Amino acid sequence: SFAKVDHHRSLRRGYPEVIYGEGKSAEQILKILQAMDRAGGPLLATRVSSEKAEEVLKHFPDLSYDAAARVIYRKDPRGCERPPARRSVQVLCAGSSDLPVAEEAAITAEVLGQKVERFYDVGVAGLHRLLSLREELDRAAAYVVVAGMEGALPSVVAGLVARPVIAVPTSVGYGASFGGIAALLGMLNSCAPGVAVVNIDNGFGAGYLASMIADM
Amino acid sequence: SFAKVDHHRSLRRGYPEVIYGEGKSAEQILKILQAMDRAGGPLLATRVSSEKAEEVLKHFPDLSYDAAARVIYRKDPRGCERPPARRSVQVLCAGSSDLPVAEEAAITAEVLGQKVERFYDVGVAGLHRLLSLREELDRAAAYVVVAGMEGALPSVVAGLVARPVIAVPTSVGYGASFGGIAALLGMLNSCAPGVAVVNIDNGFGAGYLASMIADM
Amino acid sequence: SFAKVDHHRSLRRGYPEVIYGEGKSAEQILKILQAMDRAGGPLLATRVSSEKAEEVLKHFPDLSYDAAARVIYRKDPRGCERPPARRSVQVLCAGSSDLPVAEEAAITAEVLGQKVERFYDVGVAGLHRLLSLREELDRAAAYVVVAGMEGALPSVVAGLVARPVIAVPTSVGYGASFGGIAALLGMLNSCAPGVAVVNIDNGFGAGYLASMIADM
Amino acid sequence: SFAKVDHHRSLRRGYPEVIYGEGKSAEQILKILQAMDRAGGPLLATRVSSEKAEEVLKHFPDLSYDAAARVIYRKDPRGCERPPARRSVQVLCAGSSDLPVAEEAAITAEVLGQKVERFYDVGVAGLHRLLSLREELDRAAAYVVVAGMEGALPSVVAGLVARPVIAVPTSVGYGASFGGIAALLGMLNSCAPGVAVVNIDNGFGAGYLASMIADM
Amino acid sequence: SFAKVDHHRSLRRGYPEVIYGEGKSAEQILKILQAMDRAGGPLLATRVSSEKAEEVLKHFPDLSYDAAARVIYRKDPRGCERPPARRSVQVLCAGSSDLPVAEEAAITAEVLGQKVERFYDVGVAGLHRLLSLREELDRAAAYVVVAGMEGALPSVVAGLVARPVIAVPTSVGYGASFGGIAALLGMLNSCAPGVAVVNIDNGFGAGYLASMIADM
Amino acid sequence: SFAKVDHHRSLRRGYPEVIYGEGKSAEQILKILQAMDRAGGPLLATRVSSEKAEEVLKHFPDLSYDAAARVIYRKDPRGCERPPARRSVQVLCAGSSDLPVAEEAAITAEVLGQKVERFYDVGVAGLHRLLSLREELDRAAAYVVVAGMEGALPSVVAGLVARPVIAVPTSVGYGASFGGIAALLGMLNSCAPGVAVVNIDNGFGAGYLASMIADM
Amino acid sequence: SFAKVDHHRSLRRGYPEVIYGEGKSAEQILKILQAMDRAGGPLLATRVSSEKAEEVLKHFPDLSYDAAARVIYRKDPRGCERPPARRSVQVLCAGSSDLPVAEEAAITAEVLGQKVERFYDVGVAGLHRLLSLREELDRAAAYVVVAGMEGALPSVVAGLVARPVIAVPTSVGYGASFGGIAALLGMLNSCAPGVAVVNIDNGFGAGYLASMIADM
Amino acid sequence: SFAKVDHHRSLRRGYPEVIYGEGKSAEQILKILQAMDRAGGPLLATRVSSEKAEEVLKHFPDLSYDAAARVIYRKDPRGCERPPARRSVQVLCAGSSDLPVAEEAAITAEVLGQKVERFYDVGVAGLHRLLSLREELDRAAAYVVVAGMEGALPSVVAGLVARPVIAVPTSVGYGASFGGIAALLGMLNSCAPGVAVVNIDNGFGAGYLASMIADM
Ligand SMILES: Nc1ncnc2c1ncn2[C@@H]1O[C@H](COP(=O)(O)O)[C@@H](O)[C@H]1O
Ligand SMILES: Nc1ncnc2c1ncn2[C@@H]1O[C@H](COP(=O)(O)O)[C@@H](O)[C@H]1O
Ligand SMILES: Nc1ncnc2c1ncn2[C@@H]1O[C@H](COP(=O)(O)O)[C@@H](O)[C@H]1O
Ligand SMILES: Nc1ncnc2c1ncn2[C@@H]1O[C@H](COP(=O)(O)O)[C@@H](O)[C@H]1O
Ligand SMILES: [Mg+2]
Ligand SMILES: [Mg+2]
Ligand SMILES: [Mg+2]
Ligand SMILES: [Mg+2]
Ligand SMILES: [Mg+2]
Ligand SMILES: [Mg+2]
Ligand SMILES: [Mg+2]
Ligand SMILES: [Mg+2]
Repeated sequence: SFAKVDHHRSLRRGYPEVIYGEGKSAEQILKILQAMDRAGGPLLATRVSSEKAEEVLKHFPDLSYDAAARVIYRKDPRGCERPPARRSVQVLCAGSSDLPVAEEAAITAEVLGQKVERFYDVGVAGLHRLLSLREELDRAAAYVVVAGMEGALPSVVAGLVARPVIAVPTSVGYGASFGGIAALLGMLNSCAPGVAVVNIDNGFGAGYLASMIADM
Repeated sequence: SFAKVDHHRSLRRGYPEVIYGEGKSAEQILKILQAMDRAGGPLLATRVSSEKAEEVLKHFPDLSYDAAARVIYRKDPRGCERPPARRSVQVLCAGSSDLPVAEEAAITAEVLGQKVERFYDVGVAGLHRLLSLREELDRAAAYVVVAGMEGALPSVVAGLVARPVIAVPTSVGYGASFGGIAALLGMLNSCAPGVAVVNIDNGFGAGYLASMIADM
Repeated sequence: SFAKVDHHRSLRRGYPEVIYGEGKSAEQILKILQAMDRAGGPLLATRVSSEKAEEVLKHFPDLSYDAAARVIYRKDPRGCERPPARRSVQVLCAGSSDLPVAEEAAITAEVLGQKVERFYDVGVAGLHRLLSLREELDRAAAYVVVAGMEGALPSVVAGLVARPVIAVPTSVGYGASFGGIAALLGMLNSCAPGVAVVNIDNGFGAGYLASMIADM
Repeated sequence: SFAKVDHHRSLRRGYPEVIYGEGKSAEQILKILQAMDRAGGPLLATRVSSEKAEEVLKHFPDLSYDAAARVIYRKDPRGCERPPARRSVQVLCAGSSDLPVAEEAAITAEVLGQKVERFYDVGVAGLHRLLSLREELDRAAAYVVVAGMEGALPSVVAGLVARPVIAVPTSVGYGASFGGIAALLGMLNSCAPGVAVVNIDNGFGAGYLASMIADM
Repeated sequence: SFAKVDHHRSLRRGYPEVIYGEGKSAEQILKILQAMDRAGGPLLATRVSSEKAEEVLKHFPDLSYDAAARVIYRKDPRGCERPPARRSVQVLCAGSSDLPVAEEAAITAEVLGQKVERFYDVGVAGLHRLLSLREELDRAAAYVVVAGMEGALPSVVAGLVARPVIAVPTSVGYGASFGGIAALLGMLNSCAPGVAVVNIDNGFGAGYLASMIADM
Repeated sequence: SFAKVDHHRSLRRGYPEVIYGEGKSAEQILKILQAMDRAGGPLLATRVSSEKAEEVLKHFPDLSYDAAARVIYRKDPRGCERPPARRSVQVLCAGSSDLPVAEEAAITAEVLGQKVERFYDVGVAGLHRLLSLREELDRAAAYVVVAGMEGALPSVVAGLVARPVIAVPTSVGYGASFGGIAALLGMLNSCAPGVAVVNIDNGFGAGYLASMIADM
Repeated sequence: SFAKVDHHRSLRRGYPEVIYGEGKSAEQILKILQAMDRAGGPLLATRVSSEKAEEVLKHFPDLSYDAAARVIYRKDPRGCERPPARRSVQVLCAGSSDLPVAEEAAITAEVLGQKVERFYDVGVAGLHRLLSLREELDRAAAYVVVAGMEGALPSVVAGLVARPVIAVPTSVGYGASFGGIAALLGMLNSCAPGVAVVNIDNGFGAGYLASMIADM
Repeated sequence: SFAKVDHHRSLRRGYPEVIYGEGKSAEQILKILQAMDRAGGPLLATRVSSEKAEEVLKHFPDLSYDAAARVIYRKDPRGCERPPARRSVQVLCAGSSDLPVAEEAAITAEVLGQKVERFYDVGVAGLHRLLSLREELDRAAAYVVVAGMEGALPSVVAGLVARPVIAVPTSVGYGASFGGIAALLGMLNSCAPGVAVVNIDNGFGAGYLASMIADM
């Protein structure tokens, strides 16, 4: 009774509720996952430390854990029957330190049934890396673009493509990056239309929204 | 030569470039609109004062001006041939003072060829107004949800629907609303997944992104 | 002599002084509690770690400790003789991570002699949870509404009820929640009248004020 | 149809809806007031300039306008039949420049049927002014305490009385007062329990909440 | 005697003192310019309104005024004898609204004797505009890169060239651009080395520093 | 009755109350001055516009007005009988735009009976100007050091002298000076001991405190 | 050679240089203390952890360490010959958690030769504690007033006394105290003249300045 | 494939790519260094802890590690053949706690082939230390000036020299230094022209830019 699982959600929203693991014990996470399991479908718990994950998986071996993204998950079984012509969700990130957030987005989208393509370490300080991807970029339904520091990558990507860009600022950086504020503000002020922004380090939210778009 | 019209854009992006009117003279706006006219299609200039608009429309009577939204526009001629089954873009706003930003979003989406439905003054302090719209909400492809002050409306809407919510914080409010920061932060921290945020007062950006999604 | 107990307070204010445990040693907390004991009545010390609490309770076994709320307390003996028709203090919280702050408020009100009702995990992303409580909400004298992240719950509650709402922002969240600033600003900008706000994570202050109101 | 009057509110909340005049035309304010008039009871519109007020009163001569508080109002007719023993709402302010906000609070409480007592220019730099009021302070149900600059007055008042203090920070000041932030933060951090805070310059919200408390 | 002209400076620094026009009267600006004229060489006064400039030029017709950059100036007479092989200072800006700041930088560099090349409206939302300039970029000694909104241009330029980039954030933008803070933070966090930043809208400072570098 | 003159103050504090003119009408200022006149001694009203001052002086011709400092004043008659050996209050400012704040400080100190010496436009970008004053600096009791922009002057002065430095940040500057925040923070972080800071643009407060020190 | 001891200082300033211990090793602190010892007089090193202090005192047993204030010191030998009529430095603090900062101030003043009186835990929530000190307050030359949370104490003290108040905000508090910002802003905006402020937690700077004043 | 080494960079930029060690494992850093080694030339990895460095150097003994600066490096072999008349890069810092950042700058410049001169602990509170360096200052091509707290040193240096000053704010300080913001703002607002700023604690970026300038 410490938590009210929102069983309506998967009806109302098409997707199941997702557990926010921060500040919950392994036992609490396990109980909510088990309650949700009865409702069927894919499962996801974010922001779970490896210690808690080990504990949870001991009692629920059906699940996987990704240590970089810090998520416990079980992919959507319908994922495999997806029509091959379906457009992908593409996840790009600027630097190699943004990887954990990018992976949280990528796995979220996979759990929700998407085909995901990853293009990492393609920041704007070496543009040739991004420009060489132009052809691949054309086959996506939506882009999750992850960047810390100055957060310029989403603007540049949005200037090259014709579909929605979900920008994710990360807390990577130091000094005047202010834990992701610099990247967040850069993305909110993007001079390229077609960009919307989620919270700092919120890979989950971006992967979720990109999935919604790809499912249309 | 004060401005380089991005003729590639309508090829690359599917949509034409849009003029940011702030800080440009009526003459400059007119010249860019005329240059773009040669490229054909819908036209849009945002953040244009009524004085400048009057001046521009004198020389280019084909255009319309909306005084609330402060935009000069010509709608997409293809708009009328749109399949009737197509899902709409819905624009909701919390208070009547948010109307200018909501209209900027709505007209942008119309210019880009969407069917737009408006639900205004449905803020969370009187929930019955929103709850009575449930049926209508089901027929949208995407939602633009506009709110100032505490910016709670997008979370509540996202909790009721199954499609993407583009949240637009407005600078409406006083004191600790800090010109829209309170609403912006509220929206970025939405506890309902499926929400992404654009800049404060950026109705244009939200209408543009919602159109991209509705066109998928 | 490191602290001057404000013995006047319980005369002046109706309620006894409460100890702010942060930065005080177990020994100091114990001494102040013993000094206050002589003055009679209920006792409360907030922000006490479990290590310090164990130390204090060893020498003063009459007291209780709540590990979630991190308070040492002894309830108001008059609490039990309270007229049954008396309106309650209700404590609501948005997510299960807000529980420690909600409990600090609830126990404070109980110590000061109130009947307290708790409704937890009823955030705005799943409105049906709150809407199903309408009848219960009608029997309160005052509401303590606790929420982190975007802090929208107090506005929605205030729109449903006819009595004072004391809003408590929590530091639950990450990124642009900025340790509770997002929730704090949301609450200060509530578009529903009848809301006032206390400091981030200040469950104590909210429980105290709600008790004052319920005692009128 | 630019606004949906919340006719439910006066049932749900006990008090009628109040018009936020900022950004509405005189004509819009008049229309909403007329719509509300049909519902009966007291009337209030805040943040109305004198130009708009003159226009509105021309067509609705039954109303009054207060130029300091910038409100249009009609007091609660029931106000006069109030039992004389009823506790008052007291409004205190620190400096003479805080008067407009204090008056907004005072008139709001009067419109909602309260007996209001005003004590102005009693800031903490000259404590004798406040200390000489001790006897008067004892007869209130609730206090609205208004202060700009460092905002210390609510803490000092709360230390002297036994009933709820609603603190209102004002934007009076310059430099590091940051338009009321200094006062707001001071009040949120009050070391005297029994204080809750409303938005900067929100005299209305404080008067409303104090009335709710006095009506208990 | 309201101002102490720093006659040492042109000896110590190689360049003459420059007048900051903001908050000085036309008469004061004129007097300082005349005092400096005796010391010989180029002259520059920044942040001068057109009204003041008209007044000053009436009494000192030898000077020029640029209405966009808001500077009064007389170019370095040695400018014309400069060796033709000398590398230029290049001034780039992202949008056409950044032009006033870009021109302040360009004219400053010209006054200090540099050959200046201007590339305006080459922002990152349409990368082809910048990529087509690659050859021209190779002939500069230093770059002044001016951008508002997200301020991404300096990072992209620095990734393409081998010489110092002086980044100038501008106050162009709205909402979460916060008067240039977004651009400033973006530039300070540039992930491309070889970038340093001056104050928001400080075209003068950037033109000055670029000249120092080009003179080495 | 809009204001309670603090007649106790001149007994308690040694100095009379000073009127804060912002937000008071000419008539209100006049009335308070007249009330204070009965109490005798020097008079001072700060932040008075020239229009209001003209009005006030018409009815109270005994007073003076300084248009730069924006103060109405009557100097302490005892000023002239002061022992000549008494140490002075010295007011230094960094740039000529800081003059209004410096003059507010200087006149305040003169009204309170001090001998004041002014050293203006001696900022740290041209150190020789300050270094040449070393001998004069030795004869002060206290220093008021006024600076905008980076606010470095107080640190440098404090490193040269042996008596208290009262630092006054000014709102002079643009961009990242943030209306005086940069100067304020610089001064609070001064690495030279012997510096304390007053509010941005608060020349009055600094002149008052320096007078207190010089009177010891 | 990692540090240049400023031997001039004690000549220039009257007081010796003081060591800022943060970020220096025990060995470095010891070496600087030994270098200064040769120059004679009192000694002070601030922000020294107990581990480092133990190490230093092992090699320099002549020194003392105060664990609350975290300072190593040797008092001014002249302290004892001070004329008994000399006015004291008084150190007041609001809550018992402010004690470490208050002690840093008090010991600094003692090291510099002052007679120091301490009045702790006299915050504004219980005014009688301060009001009962009025007589004692009259015998000081200067006041160091230390407070966290809302930082109201300096204003109230300055309203009661006739000599300089040096206000020290502390980082004590939580939530919207923002590590001392709330207290800092409150103090900068003090409506009582005669107050100047030092950095958050800078007891040293306040004690030093108060000593300078008391030595006049 | 977790990282794309930018092999183009050393062609495009003249300098090789530099590894940002934060958030990379020892193994990842080693692999990138080995990949870069094939490309020849100098090597640099910044923000590397001593634990990781030990691990890396075990497998790549050709490299050095500096524990203060936290960098792994191999100097430019061409450094030694540099013409002796070449101007130096000078690195100055204000206090001894700024040393790690200063060393990051100095070693970066050395790795890129510069002659570096260091002048440490020459802050503005004791100006004679800086003034005695005037002759040495004349022989530099560019200055890296490192300071925390109020960050005044770059302005003072720029007022004394005729070549570019790269200012580096550090996070040294406490309270209102806000982790380097005070120093950053001070430097951005420098009233001495010829100063540009890099991110807080970004010694690397400053050393890199100074090298670019010295190489012209
Ligand atoms: N990493 C995350 N960031 C933001 N929201 C999340 C995250 N993971 C889960 N959520 C949302 O948090 C809510 C659950 O919160 P709770 O009731 O505290 O478990 C659900 O609405 C999820 O969709
Ligand atoms: N958790 C809390 N948050 C804010 N104030 C508190 C808290 N707990 C106790 N207090 C108040 O802090 C004051 C005691 O402070 P102290 O003298 O430091 O023990 C009393 O006025 C209490 O009412
Ligand atoms: N320029 C000023 N800045 C700050 N405080 C001031 C100023 N001028 C007067 N005061 C103080 O403001 C108070 C008067 O406020 P009021 O009652 O509004 O006139 C007195 O305590 C004065 O000492
Ligand atoms: N200490 C540093 N601060 C800022 N940027 C750095 C630093 N060290 C390396 N870099 C830059 O960071 C980039 C490498 O990032 P990454 O791909 O994550 O290794 C390169 O462009 C470097 O020039
Ligand atoms: Mg990389
Ligand atoms: Mg409404
Ligand atoms: Mg939940
Ligand atoms: Mg007053
Ligand atoms: Mg353009
Ligand atoms: Mg000057
Ligand atoms: Mg206490
Ligand atoms: Mg030193």
